[in-house]
Parts: sequence; structure tokens; C-alpha cells
Amino acid sequence: MMKEPPEWAFEFHGHRCPFMPLGYRMGIRAMRELGVAREKDHGFFVMPELGVAHPQTCLMDGLQIATGATYGKSLMERTYWGKLAAVFYHPGKGAVRVSLRPEFLDAFDAVEFFAYRRRGIEPSQIPGEVTARALEWIDSQTDEQIFKIEKLDGYPYSPPKGSFNRVKCSVCGEYVFERYVRLSKGEPCCIPCSGYQAKGSSLRHSGEAGTQTP
Amino acid sequence: MMKEPPEWAFEFHGHRCPFMPLGYRMGIRAMRELGVAREKDHGFFVMPELGVAHPQTCLMDGLQIATGATYGKSLMERTYWGKLAAVFYHPGKGAVRVSLRPEFLDAFDAVEFFAYRRRGIEPSQIPGEVTARALEWIDSQTDEQIFKIEKLDGYPYSPPKGSFNRVKCSVCGEYVFERYVRLSKGEPCCIPCSGYQAKGSSLRHSGEAGTQTP
Repeated sequence: MMKEPPEWAFEFHGHRCPFMPLGYRMGIRAMRELGVAREKDHGFFVMPELGVAHPQTCLMDGLQIATGATYGKSLMERTYWGKLAAVFYHPGKGAVRVSLRPEFLDAFDAVEFFAYRRRGIEPSQIPGEVTARALEWIDSQTDEQIFKIEKLDGYPYSPPKGSFNRVKCSVCGEYVFERYVRLSKGEPCCIPCSGYQAKGSSLRHSGEAGTQTP
Repeated sequence: MMKEPPEWAFEFHGHRCPFMPLGYRMGIRAMRELGVAREKDHGFFVMPELGVAHPQTCLMDGLQIATGATYGKSLMERTYWGKLAAVFYHPGKGAVRVSLRPEFLDAFDAVEFFAYRRRGIEPSQIPGEVTARALEWIDSQTDEQIFKIEKLDGYPYSPPKGSFNRVKCSVCGEYVFERYVRLSKGEPCCIPCSGYQAKGSSLRHSGEAGTQTP
């Protein structure tokens, strides 16, 4: 397994930055710990402990790229805890949590790249040699310096049961998968047409900061 | 702009299936409607209306690939509504909602590929020629047959304010971005150490089905 992401990873991600490749390396390391290959279908789950609106979430694109546990396949979902860590779970192989060591983060902070980021400069606008030096600095660190690795016994995750059933919303006429159908005046509705949810309330970041009830 | 995803898109996604390429085409179409290019940094947002544990979520990987609004860059988040649609929002260009027409979905359902999926066969195990025929069938449909497109005026989305500040959790010693810090007995804690959230409650799918408070 390679430590560096393939070239298409940067194309997917959209810019060069140190955290996507770091997430890639983290994912590869977790897979080695568990003894699993990149996931083709729907059997390997990654729960990053990151949130939104803080730096370094790019880590998660590296995790998607390394593991194949993509957001689109519903194999990845952040916990909204604002932590630079992730749990990797394979039903047949168990679970491992990998986090970035605080000492590593302290040292990494001094890398010039972040001075640009703190000034609000977007990654694609940062000089290539500055980004390259950040990547070189990561390469100079061993896995042991970067990652804390914890095996998790009896990890309680169970994927939700799937269903192909869908119905048409009685208001807008669009299809809804049954799991998400609501009843309004006895008729099946999609959530936005049901009126049970404040408009726009579920649009984004609604799961953040631990405010949701499970 | 191309209608077909690049070859690396299939590598990222992990398997060949019809819904990733369909999502790619949907993303390209939405970008054309808004007049935006693929997002390099953090300025274009995609809110898919899909949920979890239903088929066809692979659409979202196609959306990530086409738009550059990746999950890792915190530019994509599903609403958990179980609908095959997405809103695309660019602060300077406005918002557009693109959904898959029910008539298209009815016709698409008859494609052999889905008979395999309904029997529980994973996409990577479906014969290549069956998948190829599903992709050819999509290619034979016009954008007008597939997509319903709605311009949204005054779309209310505003991204959360970012911050680089972080502190160490007083219990586990790991870094937490300030937005997610909790206080317990006067000391800063990360959410799992705070005890304010039932163990495992935020692990996955907690945002689904409209149960969360915003």
C-alpha cells in the first residue's frame, strides 16, 4: 500500500493541501491495522470525529480516497465533535480509532502553509512551493509521531437496515424512500411537504454540536 | 463540460454502477445552469436530499466528483429526506434544485441492473455487460427526460462562521476545535468526554429522518 495519494486524488479534492494527503495516509494505516482492502461496495465504515467550520476537514477527503468508504455510498459520516480522529469499522475485522497526536499538531502548526490559511488565503491560491514544503514536512514524520492508534473492542456500530421501497409524495408527486415518508392528513408526504420540519431547518449543519436526538 | 465521468471517478467510487455517473451528469448540468466551474476551494455548496439505507445514494459520489463540493471540504451534506434531488448553491450565482423525474425513475427501474441489486448482489459482483447496458440506457435519455430543474430565488443558506481556535480536552488531552468544546465542572471537554451525549448516540445516522433540532 502506498503512503502518497494517487494524482487523481488531488483532482477530486480540487486543490493541493497537506490535510487531504494526511487523511490518505491515516486511512491506509487504519486499513493495515485492520487487514482490510479498499472497499468496493458497502462493507467498511469510517466515522470521522471532525465537525464543520474548522480547518483541516480536508482530512476526510483523504479518508474517502484511501478507504473507498465514500460519503455517496453512505459509508462515512462525521460525528460533529471537532476532533482530528476517525473510527474505522469492518464487520469482520473489528474497529480501530486513529487520531492525530497533539504534539504532532503543535509542530505542524508552525509550518508556513497554515500562516497563509490563517490569513484567509484559500489553498488553491497558496504558492505551490509553500504547499510542497508542508507535504515534505509530513513525509519526514513517522507514523508513530503522527498517529495514536487504539483498537476498539466490541464497537457497537450496526448499519441501518436497507429498503428499496418508495412511494410518491401526495403533495409534490416526487418519489420518497419509505424510511423517510411522513403522514399528513392520512396521506404519505415527503419531509419538506409534511410541514413537520421548520423550513430550511434540515438544510445543513443540523447535526452539528451534539444538539440532535438520535 | 463532459457528460461522462473521468476514469478515476470509478476508482474513487470503488465500483461501476449507473447512479454515480448519473450524479456526475446531474452535477455538470447544475453547474451549467448556475454558470459555475468545478470548485477548487470552499465556495460552492451542494445539499443532496437523499438519506441513508436506501438505494441510489451513489448519486452523491457523482455529485462530489462533478462539482468539487466534497464532503471533506464540508461543502456537501445530505438533508436525510430520502429524495433523489439536490440543491446547488453558489453565493455569487444563486441556487438551483435538480431532481430526477418520477417517470424517469419508473422507466429506469426496469433496467436489469436493479433486478440484481434487489436480490442483494453488490455492484462490483454484477456482470460488466449488465452494468454497461444500464449506463447505455441512461445515455439514451435526454437531460429533459431525466432532470427537473428549478431555480430557487432567495435561497436562505449561509455557511457557518469558521474558526481556527482549538483547546485541549481536560479529560483525554486531545485537541478540540472551540466550536465543539463543552464545559464540565468548569473545565473544557470534548463532546465524548463531557458525558452530555449518550455513548454512541452521535455515531451515525443521528441526523436522519428529521429527528434533530437545528
